[in-house]
Amino acid sequence: MARAERPTRIADGPVAVVADAVALLAAVRSTAASADVTGIHAVGISAPGPVDPVGGLLLEPPNLGPAFRDLPLAEPLGSAMGLPAVLERDTNVALLGEIAFGAAKGARHALYLTVSTGIGGAVLVDGRLLAGSGGLGGELGHVVVDLDGPPCGCGARGHLEAYSSGVGIARAARDAIDRGGAPGLSDLARRIGARPITARDVAAAEERGDPDAAAIMELARRAFAAALVGMVDVFAPEIVVVGGGIAAAQGERLLGPARDAVRATAFRTAASRVRIVAAALGDDVGLIGALALVRARSRAA
Amino acid sequence: MARAERPTRIADGPVAVVADAVALLAAVRSTAASADVTGIHAVGISAPGPVDPVGGLLLEPPNLGPAFRDLPLAEPLGSAMGLPAVLERDTNVALLGEIAFGAAKGARHALYLTVSTGIGGAVLVDGRLLAGSGGLGGELGHVVVDLDGPPCGCGARGHLEAYSSGVGIARAARDAIDRGGAPGLSDLARRIGARPITARDVAAAEERGDPDAAAIMELARRAFAAALVGMVDVFAPEIVVVGGGIAAAQGERLLGPARDAVRATAFRTAASRVRIVAAALGDDVGLIGALALVRARSRAA
Repeated sequence: MARAERPTRIADGPVAVVADAVALLAAVRSTAASADVTGIHAVGISAPGPVDPVGGLLLEPPNLGPAFRDLPLAEPLGSAMGLPAVLERDTNVALLGEIAFGAAKGARHALYLTVSTGIGGAVLVDGRLLAGSGGLGGELGHVVVDLDGPPCGCGARGHLEAYSSGVGIARAARDAIDRGGAPGLSDLARRIGARPITARDVAAAEERGDPDAAAIMELARRAFAAALVGMVDVFAPEIVVVGGGIAAAQGERLLGPARDAVRATAFRTAASRVRIVAAALGDDVGLIGALALVRARSRAA
Repeated sequence: MARAERPTRIADGPVAVVADAVALLAAVRSTAASADVTGIHAVGISAPGPVDPVGGLLLEPPNLGPAFRDLPLAEPLGSAMGLPAVLERDTNVALLGEIAFGAAKGARHALYLTVSTGIGGAVLVDGRLLAGSGGLGGELGHVVVDLDGPPCGCGARGHLEAYSSGVGIARAARDAIDRGGAPGLSDLARRIGARPITARDVAAAEERGDPDAAAIMELARRAFAAALVGMVDVFAPEIVVVGGGIAAAQGERLLGPARDAVRATAFRTAASRVRIVAAALGDDVGLIGALALVRARSRAA
């Protein structure tokens, strides 16, 4: 096995980023053992959504900027390597990885949620990724939790992502500080100075016993649990896999109340069938999932 | 074509109800033209959810009582008629009917919502009903709208059904009367006397200009719109079909704001692809849908 990596040069634009990716692929091939190189059959690409998996394009990646809109990725990377290339949204890739090699082995009805800077999702329906029209389906972070809640990055109000993501938790802390009723968080913000307060800071403050931080984290966990009840009623999955940095840091503090809420308030039969578990693949989920993606697409073709 | 109907004798228990259904089927066959009788190939059954479509059972129908739990329906009706019989949840049947003969002809990615006494749903994913584990998937009425909202019949809080269904609207009116701040609704409740206030009463009071009734109906419409935005992001459907008595009575007052919210806050590409329309099949949707169900199952077999 060989690996190579480098930061995405967003400021240098899409041409530079694609050129870097081609160079990395070439480097991986040149450093891999010769037995491994003959075993390379395809390029699997995990990219931030939304993507067009059929055309192999990025569509409107929110953190990369307008220059990356409608950017072809599968074709240039595949051509450069002389191999077929397939592209999927990172959360779909993660779900395929967890199904093939991780926490959801063999499942046919599964949800994947990543609780991180934002909240992303993916859905397996009877063994196939929920694509929806144009491959855009499965965005589980933008279900409503409170229709009069705080603004979400997508433009709506009170979405799951606005409560339970890193961005949402940090915003709640800033709001509490601005309202002037959170002395512990205000002190913390002064101590850390120029750097903005993060979800990690809020979680650490809860650990130290700060009541305002605890209220924010508690609401983040309750919102996640309430949204998950709806998802279990909608999809009747066998398993829900929860990944992402915040989920990993919170662990059972996040998953335990979600399980309790599902048992208490989802439909009885659906609730009795579902397992809610932590992701198994960790930071390499994109790499491992890309292998699962290539295999799944080969079988489908 | 021949038809026969009678009220469901819930109080007399499942044996009486199944016997009535067999008698009705026999009556239909005996009164149908002989050319039609030779064309009868199967029995299609639309039943209140949750159901087990594989086993042909009712599971735990909330409005029929515990005597009807786990009741086989497909086998006894099929045996009595000497025909294959297939059973599905009423909302899944309605969606199949709208796809085959109604407002969503030819769609492959579609949602169906019925806004009535309760709120039910059904989902078509790439041409197939979203079944989930055990055929239980597609319950769209029990997604959260406000995690601290009013109690829902399912045991959770603030679900779509608790805001936008007939039961939810009537409960909101009773709550407003009990709080003592809704003079128009209190007068109305006194005038109608022993009968409980209904969603129809609240809608009529809004038409007459009652501000408290208007606030309740407005919240019901906003909750529906907010939930629908999440569903469009999750499923990326080509079409959303909205049926049920309250949707029919509200018409564009319900669908217009839902369309506006989806255009404004769902993901751009998904929002641009989806149409949100009224159901086309009306009161006979169960009958027409059962024909579509039989056809769909024959093709799948």
